[in-house]
Amino acid sequence: MIFASDNWAGAHPKVSAALARHAEGFAAAYGSSTLDRAIEARFNEIFEREVAVFFVGTGTAANSLALASVNRPGGVTFCHREAHVIEDECGAPEFFTHGARLVPVDGPDGRVDPATLTSEIRRFPPGFVHHGQPMAITITQATEIGTVYSGAQIDEIAAIAKHYQLPLHMDGARFANALVHLGMTPAEMTWKRGIDVVSFGATKNGCWCAEALVFLNPADAADLPFIRKRAAQLFSKSRFIAAQFEAYFEDDLWLDLARHANATAGRLQAGLTGASRARIGWQSQTNEVFAILGKEDAEAARGKGAIFYDWKAPRSVSGTIGEDETLVRLVTSFATGEDDVDRFIELFQ
Amino acid sequence: MIFASDNWAGAHPKVSAALARHAEGFAAAYGSSTLDRAIEARFNEIFEREVAVFFVGTGTAANSLALASVNRPGGVTFCHREAHVIEDECGAPEFFTHGARLVPVDGPDGRVDPATLTSEIRRFPPGFVHHGQPMAITITQATEIGTVYSGAQIDEIAAIAKHYQLPLHMDGARFANALVHLGMTPAEMTWKRGIDVVSFGATKNGCWCAEALVFLNPADAADLPFIRKRAAQLFSKSRFIAAQFEAYFEDDLWLDLARHANATAGRLQAGLTGASRARIGWQSQTNEVFAILGKEDAEAARGKGAIFYDWKAPRSVSGTIGEDETLVRLVTSFATGEDDVDRFIELFQ
Amino acid sequence: MIFASDNWAGAHPKVSAALARHAEGFAAAYGSSTLDRAIEARFNEIFEREVAVFFVGTGTAANSLALASVNRPGGVTFCHREAHVIEDECGAPEFFTHGARLVPVDGPDGRVDPATLTSEIRRFPPGFVHHGQPMAITITQATEIGTVYSGAQIDEIAAIAKHYQLPLHMDGARFANALVHLGMTPAEMTWKRGIDVVSFGATKNGCWCAEALVFLNPADAADLPFIRKRAAQLFSKSRFIAAQFEAYFEDDLWLDLARHANATAGRLQAGLTGASRARIGWQSQTNEVFAILGKEDAEAARGKGAIFYDWKAPRSVSGTIGEDETLVRLVTSFATGEDDVDRFIELFQ
Amino acid sequence: MIFASDNWAGAHPKVSAALARHAEGFAAAYGSSTLDRAIEARFNEIFEREVAVFFVGTGTAANSLALASVNRPGGVTFCHREAHVIEDECGAPEFFTHGARLVPVDGPDGRVDPATLTSEIRRFPPGFVHHGQPMAITITQATEIGTVYSGAQIDEIAAIAKHYQLPLHMDGARFANALVHLGMTPAEMTWKRGIDVVSFGATKNGCWCAEALVFLNPADAADLPFIRKRAAQLFSKSRFIAAQFEAYFEDDLWLDLARHANATAGRLQAGLTGASRARIGWQSQTNEVFAILGKEDAEAARGKGAIFYDWKAPRSVSGTIGEDETLVRLVTSFATGEDDVDRFIELFQ
Repeated sequence: MIFASDNWAGAHPKVSAALARHAEGFAAAYGSSTLDRAIEARFNEIFEREVAVFFVGTGTAANSLALASVNRPGGVTFCHREAHVIEDECGAPEFFTHGARLVPVDGPDGRVDPATLTSEIRRFPPGFVHHGQPMAITITQATEIGTVYSGAQIDEIAAIAKHYQLPLHMDGARFANALVHLGMTPAEMTWKRGIDVVSFGATKNGCWCAEALVFLNPADAADLPFIRKRAAQLFSKSRFIAAQFEAYFEDDLWLDLARHANATAGRLQAGLTGASRARIGWQSQTNEVFAILGKEDAEAARGKGAIFYDWKAPRSVSGTIGEDETLVRLVTSFATGEDDVDRFIELFQ
Repeated sequence: MIFASDNWAGAHPKVSAALARHAEGFAAAYGSSTLDRAIEARFNEIFEREVAVFFVGTGTAANSLALASVNRPGGVTFCHREAHVIEDECGAPEFFTHGARLVPVDGPDGRVDPATLTSEIRRFPPGFVHHGQPMAITITQATEIGTVYSGAQIDEIAAIAKHYQLPLHMDGARFANALVHLGMTPAEMTWKRGIDVVSFGATKNGCWCAEALVFLNPADAADLPFIRKRAAQLFSKSRFIAAQFEAYFEDDLWLDLARHANATAGRLQAGLTGASRARIGWQSQTNEVFAILGKEDAEAARGKGAIFYDWKAPRSVSGTIGEDETLVRLVTSFATGEDDVDRFIELFQ
Repeated sequence: MIFASDNWAGAHPKVSAALARHAEGFAAAYGSSTLDRAIEARFNEIFEREVAVFFVGTGTAANSLALASVNRPGGVTFCHREAHVIEDECGAPEFFTHGARLVPVDGPDGRVDPATLTSEIRRFPPGFVHHGQPMAITITQATEIGTVYSGAQIDEIAAIAKHYQLPLHMDGARFANALVHLGMTPAEMTWKRGIDVVSFGATKNGCWCAEALVFLNPADAADLPFIRKRAAQLFSKSRFIAAQFEAYFEDDLWLDLARHANATAGRLQAGLTGASRARIGWQSQTNEVFAILGKEDAEAARGKGAIFYDWKAPRSVSGTIGEDETLVRLVTSFATGEDDVDRFIELFQ
Repeated sequence: MIFASDNWAGAHPKVSAALARHAEGFAAAYGSSTLDRAIEARFNEIFEREVAVFFVGTGTAANSLALASVNRPGGVTFCHREAHVIEDECGAPEFFTHGARLVPVDGPDGRVDPATLTSEIRRFPPGFVHHGQPMAITITQATEIGTVYSGAQIDEIAAIAKHYQLPLHMDGARFANALVHLGMTPAEMTWKRGIDVVSFGATKNGCWCAEALVFLNPADAADLPFIRKRAAQLFSKSRFIAAQFEAYFEDDLWLDLARHANATAGRLQAGLTGASRARIGWQSQTNEVFAILGKEDAEAARGKGAIFYDWKAPRSVSGTIGEDETLVRLVTSFATGEDDVDRFIELFQ
């Protein structure tokens, strides 16, 4: 009953097999092998246009380099108040941009609120050097709390980005989970709506270490080869990332794995909704479920082997949580079994 | 006949097997799993003392974070003129130290010359702010051109480091190759001689992506967890690196692989020494051989499938290279076959 | 009727005279002249202990270098939400610390609220690398909105700083204005209460360009000479700053000038309090007055030559401001005449 | 007999007078005053075209921000081996560019050698990420050793800059000294020959603290307002710099002062050439004279009140200096008296 995080899972057997397959023989280093090239072409197919793809080692690297690629002196990036970039990356985005700042934007359900975003951008009038200057907007899809921006919601943010001529980044650490929820194509969820660059995460969804920075307009990536190398993110045996993506994309494995994780979370969410000793914090749409449990029940569940983290309650629900209750996050992954879900639900009947 | 680089090889089957083995099940993320801990303890055994170990993704990351950990404002690090940090890392060390500089030090056979090093350090008198201040010395073991610092040579550099109270870093991208050449233990090649921190590379010697930053005095690493995370080098599924190291160290696999690479290079060097149409640039001691070939012969070899790079001749040999000749680098690895070596030698008889 | 800012004034005649006096002859450069040394000694007297003093060119430089001197990887500095460092320095503190972040802390009347501060610091548990680590607290004395921390209020913040072992910085862009309001000595307002480092501003109070970074424990400043030089803030003819401080401190000119500015502001505040067409936003204690005016009246005053800026209303007063009203900031300085004050008040009777 | 440096002098009386004159009254802050605007217009006249001018506090700031304005990831700037940017700025250029590197280029007489420059640039082939990428060339006019690039010599460097599409920066800490030596106009010495940006120094030539960063193509400066503010180089009472420039330019004071400094140096150089106990290291063309003196004679001169620094001998002359001799630098300025020069020469007859 491990619901700590989707990064507690290992790698899918097909990913392991791909690594073993490509371990033999020799291939050009630093991203120039035949396999690297083939996977880059695969990204073109997946996004239905020519994109510029850069493999990197971590989601933090992808996000930070995305912002570095649009860096401006005194720059300010707008993100949701609970976004990974501002909360969980130890200042890496600021470090890779030499001090460009992240400005938190509030919004319900984990999503940036368009009106608040506009109001925050307006705090930085053009040419007023004291405050600095807007440089980017970043949204997280799926969000940190399991929700998803609908197509219309992306459109709204993209319209603001366009109006203020700001590049729009999508942190897709759980890109696949959002995608299968929406039933969209990658193109529909990104460039067709105005996204400029995506942190395309595969690690949480069945790979060991496979993240890609995808520029939907290759011209935007002119300096990225140098930015990535200078950031120590150019792998010599780069094909070990390419090999993971090969398996990831083959026969739509990635979509299947995300569907499994989402379905398992849905089963968990439904089960807890009907349970007498638990309730849901809010409706998750992907593979993270947030539940309000009695503190004693939570400890008892841990005693029986369940692993999960307490979570800081957003304002919208904090008022509803009793003194003897706790909000917890339950994450499923490609590797989560239905039996574990059912055993967990059973604990709260 | 692939002698382009040791990073053109893939991963050793035992490394692949370890990855497959650990791909199943769940484990704590971000370096806190049982396996991560076990491999950290393994490093203690290998270095015969308690060390602080940090897994990172690339050798450039290891080197850059090592320097970041001893960073000083206006800082200057002394390295060999041909060192990887100054020649081949796109300014990553300077970037990760916010502009601390690398000062090249000359020295024969790829090694920093102690007298020249002292003379360069003296150019930065204490407290003279205009020039900046010394902050570290870094040496490469094995060097960029296949040679190795002997124990006595390390002692000499370490004495200077101690005299000027400068931390001493060892870029060990080919640590194992140097180690087996010297027949020393890791302790003898490092802390027993005054090395403070090591970039411990395994990627070139049979892993996919396994580099470790090893602080021989754990107290020196107090801030490294933050430095590494901020640098986007903390992997969520960190155990995929740990798993590689598990296989790497088991039954001294790493030493066997390095011995194979060195032996193959030795065979190649000996063969070319005796060949009529080739000669050796200098005596390599590890797995890189530098040969002077006729330009036409080199092209002919490439036509027959040999892959290798031309190399910039150091001053010591450039005078001996004819107009119609070229200096080339030939790198062997754990995966290099003797038959390939012999076929290559045959081409130059 | 110029109330735009205290930096719209020029320099006091005694400051000009000192510059003219020291313009002749030769003196050692880069801060090592007899005059530089004498003024450094003067700072020791003023602070009643040995301090380390560094002249810099701007308040932004003083603040940024203060934070650079206590920089930590993934570092977080806590400041008031409206502080100059976070609102008006274009990201300079983040830039000079390579991305260390500023976390805004709310608090009434322009002062950091101790309970909120504690709560914000606790969001960064020791060793939790994802969030980063606390590195400093900074308060502004006088605050951005004209108020002053009392001795007891400084004590409260200092106790928190001590508890969490965080250095405590005071942005003293208007140090003198706060000092004369409190009737304290510099020692009483700083190190006797736990302040570690002060941005000691003189520019707004009668100098051209005279800012000093004062370390109350000289040992904390060991690296500052390099930090300052690397930041391009070491002036070759440094004595031009020293000369300004010479005049500034002579016969307590600095305190007289601050008293004048405060008194003029007090007169303005009292006058507007009694005026029929204006009211005060809150009680200022120094040389900035915040008034709520009718929009038409404000424009009319501007038409008659008054210069002042609209100000963003803090939450505490925004509810009390009518649609046809505006909050404005009125700043006095050493150069403000009482007649200008009286003429301005007259406009709102 | 003070020949230590031109920055040991104070300010010219006309500069002091201008500061006193503008000390009265109020003026808009942060560079937007009438005086600031007027001086900016004056720069347009002086350079015979519309330029973008930014006042900063130090020459190191001007140089560093110039390079920051053309910054590229993994960037490399080419400069003379003895240039101020690489030798005497404590890594400020690297710091302000987040680690972009300076590559030293050799060349006789303090000037970058065009052939060597080309050869160094070629070490960085386009797109080869490991080495980094060229980003700028910088030359110093006058050079660190008193020589001057002729028009033809600037043309040669500019042709290389153009060929490789690299911006060309001129460190003009002693711009006026070079200008009057050449008898050129500012336009002829800069943009008419291909210079893109100039660090225009006035501090060494009679001001207290007046440096300007001049972009000869204003479009290149689009981000500079933010770069400068973020670097803490935007002065609130910016007109104190403008006032100095007002006096500096009035009635060609700046050219007169530079002529005086050069003439005094010329007298010194001629005198020492004819002296029996001294000889010249090389022909200086501006206000720095380099002489080879007997060590005992040098000490004796110091004993009689002469102040000057020993200088590191360049290779071209080091062979000619005896064991009991020393190379010294003697700098004159606007404030150097002929009597001091004559007294000094007399010591070496």
